[in-house]
Amino acid sequence: MRKNVFLISAAVAATFTFGASAQVKADAAIEYRHSVFEVIGWNFKPMAAMVKGEAPYDKEAFAKRAANVATMAPMALEGFAPGTEKGDKEKTQAKPAIWEKMDDFKGKMSKLAEESTKLAAISKTGTFDEIKKQFGATGAACKACHDDYKQK
Amino acid sequence: MRKNVFLISAAVAATFTFGASAQVKADAAIEYRHSVFEVIGWNFKPMAAMVKGEAPYDKEAFAKRAANVATMAPMALEGFAPGTEKGDKEKTQAKPAIWEKMDDFKGKMSKLAEESTKLAAISKTGTFDEIKKQFGATGAACKACHDDYKQK
Repeated sequence: MRKNVFLISAAVAATFTFGASAQVKADAAIEYRHSVFEVIGWNFKPMAAMVKGEAPYDKEAFAKRAANVATMAPMALEGFAPGTEKGDKEKTQAKPAIWEKMDDFKGKMSKLAEESTKLAAISKTGTFDEIKKQFGATGAACKACHDDYKQK
Repeated sequence: MRKNVFLISAAVAATFTFGASAQVKADAAIEYRHSVFEVIGWNFKPMAAMVKGEAPYDKEAFAKRAANVATMAPMALEGFAPGTEKGDKEKTQAKPAIWEKMDDFKGKMSKLAEESTKLAAISKTGTFDEIKKQFGATGAACKACHDDYKQK
């Protein structure tokens, strides 16, 4: 009996430890993916200001921002790996639908990577009109995912 | 008198508005630079685990992590631009010394960029011993800056 109690305690302890560890990992993933989107947003805003005419268009600065976004976009997906849906719900804006429709989510993330890579390329060589058009396509790729998978 | 009161109020309001706006910008910079370091740390940890033998060495995964760190390292400095020392002190681990000794700080950030770029290159072609050595140099570049400029 004493042995059984010990075994049960050990099993509970192991489950708890695993559970706590999974939570820690999921919370770290939440912080990570939030950070990736934060850096994307930081770079996106000055481009948006130029496109809207709220800031003077600076070709070099725009191209640098676009390159940064293209570099960051493929990094986000790793923060949504299986198990990361178990993190602290208060800390994330990710909807559970992400993990329920992972293939669709991955497709939308790929679309963002693709459009932002095009933007990075065109922002070096294109006209401002071409750049504005591709900026719109990139913003639409952000929005498509936000609409379905980000809590307001 | 009534006019004077209005003028003073307007001046106070203008100062307050400007102050609030600078605070918002500085707080955004705090969030941004924190995010850059978060993404660096996320990529650094799995490399550290491999170097310490806590995880199996995976050349491709290591090289990818090293490339990510090398990409991120030069992004951080922008988050310490003039004025960003005015942000919410509760939210930042940055010591005021950063802005007092900006040239030294910039030098240390450049050193990190340089060492992490070397790590990204060597992690693709080098032996594990060479990679471990350069990982140590990169970690030392992180630490040099943390020692002087990051609150514990």
